[in-house]
Amino acid sequence: MTGEKIAQAPGIMREEGIDLWLTFVRESEVSRDPALDLILDANCTWQSAFMIPVDGRPVAIVGSLDETRIRDAGGFEVIGYTKGIGASLIEQLERHSPRTIAVNFSENDVTSDGLSHGMYLILEGYLGGTPFAGRLVSSEGLISKLRGRKSPEEIRRIKKNIDLTEEIFDRVTAFMRPGMTEREVAAFILSEVDRLGVETSWERELCPSVFTGPESAGAHAGPTDRVIEPGHVLNIDFGTRAERYCSDMQRTWYFLRKGETAAPPEVLGPFDTIRDAIRLAAEAIRPGMQGREIDAVARDHITGKGYPEYPHALGHQIGRMTHDGAGLLCPEWERYGTLPYLEIEENQVYTLEPRITIPGFGVATMEEIVAVRKDGGEFLSHPQTEIILSG
Amino acid sequence: MTGEKIAQAPGIMREEGIDLWLTFVRESEVSRDPALDLILDANCTWQSAFMIPVDGRPVAIVGSLDETRIRDAGGFEVIGYTKGIGASLIEQLERHSPRTIAVNFSENDVTSDGLSHGMYLILEGYLGGTPFAGRLVSSEGLISKLRGRKSPEEIRRIKKNIDLTEEIFDRVTAFMRPGMTEREVAAFILSEVDRLGVETSWERELCPSVFTGPESAGAHAGPTDRVIEPGHVLNIDFGTRAERYCSDMQRTWYFLRKGETAAPPEVLGPFDTIRDAIRLAAEAIRPGMQGREIDAVARDHITGKGYPEYPHALGHQIGRMTHDGAGLLCPEWERYGTLPYLEIEENQVYTLEPRITIPGFGVATMEEIVAVRKDGGEFLSHPQTEIILSG
Repeated sequence: MTGEKIAQAPGIMREEGIDLWLTFVRESEVSRDPALDLILDANCTWQSAFMIPVDGRPVAIVGSLDETRIRDAGGFEVIGYTKGIGASLIEQLERHSPRTIAVNFSENDVTSDGLSHGMYLILEGYLGGTPFAGRLVSSEGLISKLRGRKSPEEIRRIKKNIDLTEEIFDRVTAFMRPGMTEREVAAFILSEVDRLGVETSWERELCPSVFTGPESAGAHAGPTDRVIEPGHVLNIDFGTRAERYCSDMQRTWYFLRKGETAAPPEVLGPFDTIRDAIRLAAEAIRPGMQGREIDAVARDHITGKGYPEYPHALGHQIGRMTHDGAGLLCPEWERYGTLPYLEIEENQVYTLEPRITIPGFGVATMEEIVAVRKDGGEFLSHPQTEIILSG
Repeated sequence: MTGEKIAQAPGIMREEGIDLWLTFVRESEVSRDPALDLILDANCTWQSAFMIPVDGRPVAIVGSLDETRIRDAGGFEVIGYTKGIGASLIEQLERHSPRTIAVNFSENDVTSDGLSHGMYLILEGYLGGTPFAGRLVSSEGLISKLRGRKSPEEIRRIKKNIDLTEEIFDRVTAFMRPGMTEREVAAFILSEVDRLGVETSWERELCPSVFTGPESAGAHAGPTDRVIEPGHVLNIDFGTRAERYCSDMQRTWYFLRKGETAAPPEVLGPFDTIRDAIRLAAEAIRPGMQGREIDAVARDHITGKGYPEYPHALGHQIGRMTHDGAGLLCPEWERYGTLPYLEIEENQVYTLEPRITIPGFGVATMEEIVAVRKDGGEFLSHPQTEIILSG
C-alpha cells in the first residue's frame, strides 16, 4: 500500500501547489513520524530525508547502514551517506529547485505533525543561507487528503475489520450476563481477538473498553471490577486490526430487571435519540461540506430533544489508524483548531459516535462507520437500531 | 519505575537550573514523546501538559475523557478540561512562576525530542503575551541525566536481559551448521525468544540480524536466504526485552573449513583487535570523560593495527530502549552534533561495539555492555574472548 500512496501523492501536491514533499526523520523506531507509514515499510536510524517531487523520481537520503533495507523496502532511489546528510540534502533540493517544500508539521493534525521541533531546527540549520529556507510549508493538507481519500482496497480492509468487530459483538451478546465484571467481558473479547488471529485496534488495556451502569469510569478508561447488574445500561468501545487497517465501533446493551420485557422509557428515549442523530448525520454528510456542519446535525438533534451535548467530536476518520486523516466532524472549540472547517471529501471514511449519559442507568452510545459518497454517507457497519436486551 | 524517575527529576533539575519541566503531548498512541515513558504508564488523547516543578507536586492537565486513566496511572495531581487547555496551562505556570521551563526538544538527542514542531507552535501561541514565552529551554540535559543514571533496579533489569541473550547465544551455537540460511538461524532465535516468554529488543524483522560470509547485507538489514558455508565469519546482533528493559549484543562465529582446527590468521587478527579495543575502552571509561575520548581509544587501537575505522559510534547507552540516554561514545562527526562532548556519568550503561570487515570472510564484531563505575567500566556481559568455532 505504500507504493499506492506514493503514486497518489503528486496529484494531490498539484492541487495543493506543492513542488516537493520532504519527510525528514531519524531513529524512526524510537520516534516515528506517523506519515512515514504512508510511504515506507521500514525504519531508519540516522537523519533521513524522503523526498517526493511533484515531477520526477522519489529519492531517499539515508545513513549508509540503512541503505540496504530502505532500498529493499522499495519506492525510492536511495542515496547513502556516512558523516552527515547536509550536502546531499542541498544537492537534491538544488536538482529539483522547488518553490514550495511541504514538511510534516501541523498545529491541527497529529498525523501530519511527525517532524519534531529539534529536527525542524536541524533542517533550518542545513537550509540557512539557501533560497529553500523560506519555502517550507505544512504538509497538513497533502497528508490529510492522502490519508482521507480511500481506495476501494482500503475500504475493503476497513470493512473486513468492521465485519470481525460485529461478529465479536454478537458473541459477547451471547456471553454476557449479570454478575460478570467489566474485566471478564473484556477478557472474553480479547480471547475472541486471539482466536481470530487478529489484533486490537488500539492498546489491549483499553480495547475493548467496557462500561456498565451509572457513574462508570468514563471513556478512555480500562475495564474495571464493576459488576453488571439488572437495570444497567452497558456499552463497549472496541475494534480490530487486520491487514494493517482497523475498525472502531460502539454498541449499547440493557440488562432487564425482574419482570421487565423491555428497557424503560428513560433508557429508550436517549437510545432512540442517539440512533436518530447518527442516521441524520449519515444522510446529511456530503463532499464539500465542513465537519462542523455534520457535527451540528447530530448535536442539535440531541440538544433539541432536551439532552446534554456530548463532550467530544461526532466522529473521526478511520483507516490505517483510528484517526486516519485530519478532517473531523467536530464543533468549533478551541482544542479542535481549524479542524471543524476542513472540507469533507468523497471516499473518506468517518465514525459517527454521539453519546448521552442516562442518570441512574449508564451511558447510551453507538459508533457507526460511514463512507462519504456523492449523495450521502454509505454505512459500512450495520447500524444498531434497537438496544440489545440481556437478562 | 515512573514514580522512581519522577522522584529523581527535581534533583537533576536543580543541577541544570530548571524550575519546571513541561512535557506537552497529544494523542500519545499515534505520536509518543519518548520521554513520556519516564513519567507516565498510560496514553493521553487531547493536548496534555505534564508539569514537574523543582519544588511542589507534579500536575497533569488533561482532556476530561482522560482524567480517570491518568489519575489511575499515578504520580500526578490531575486537572481535567473540556474545551481547551490554554487557560489551565497559564494558571498553573503562574502558580509556580518558573524562570526556566524545560520542554522536550533537542537537536542532538532523539529521546529528548518528543515535542513536535506543531505542538511547539501551539505552545508558543498559548504563551504569547505572557512572561513565560521567553523562558523555554531544551530538556535535553535533564532527560539525558534522568535516563542515563541507572538505579540498581534498572541495572538488575538490564543484566537480566543480558543473561537471557547470552543463554540464547549458547543455544544458537549448538544449533548452527553450514547449509543453514540466515533466515533459519533467525527463526531459531525467535522461537527461543517466544519459548522464554520475552520480546525482542527491537523489531522482530531485524532482531536478530544475522550476517554470514563476505559481502553480506550489512548492518540494519534483516536476515536473508544466504547460506552458511565453511570459511564464513558469521555475526549476530540481538537482544531481548523483559520487565520493560532490554539488551543489545553481538557475537562472532567462524565455520571451519575441511582440515581446519582454528580460524586462519586473516580472521584472528581482526577478531583479537576488536576484542582488545573493547577491553581498552572498558578500562578507560570513567565519569567526567567525554564520549569522543572513549571512542578514540577503540578507534585508534584499530587503525593503529592497520585496519579501517568502523563507520559508526563505538557505543550507546542502553536501558528502557536500545538508545537510552543522550551520551554516546562517538567521533566528532557532523551527524553526531554535540553528542561527542557530553560528559560520561557514573551508573550509565553503555554498549561497546566496534567492527572490522574481513575481506573474503565476513565481519568481526562483538557488542559488550558495561556499567560506568568510579574506577572504570564494569562488564555486565561476559565478554567474548575467542572466536566461536563451528564446523
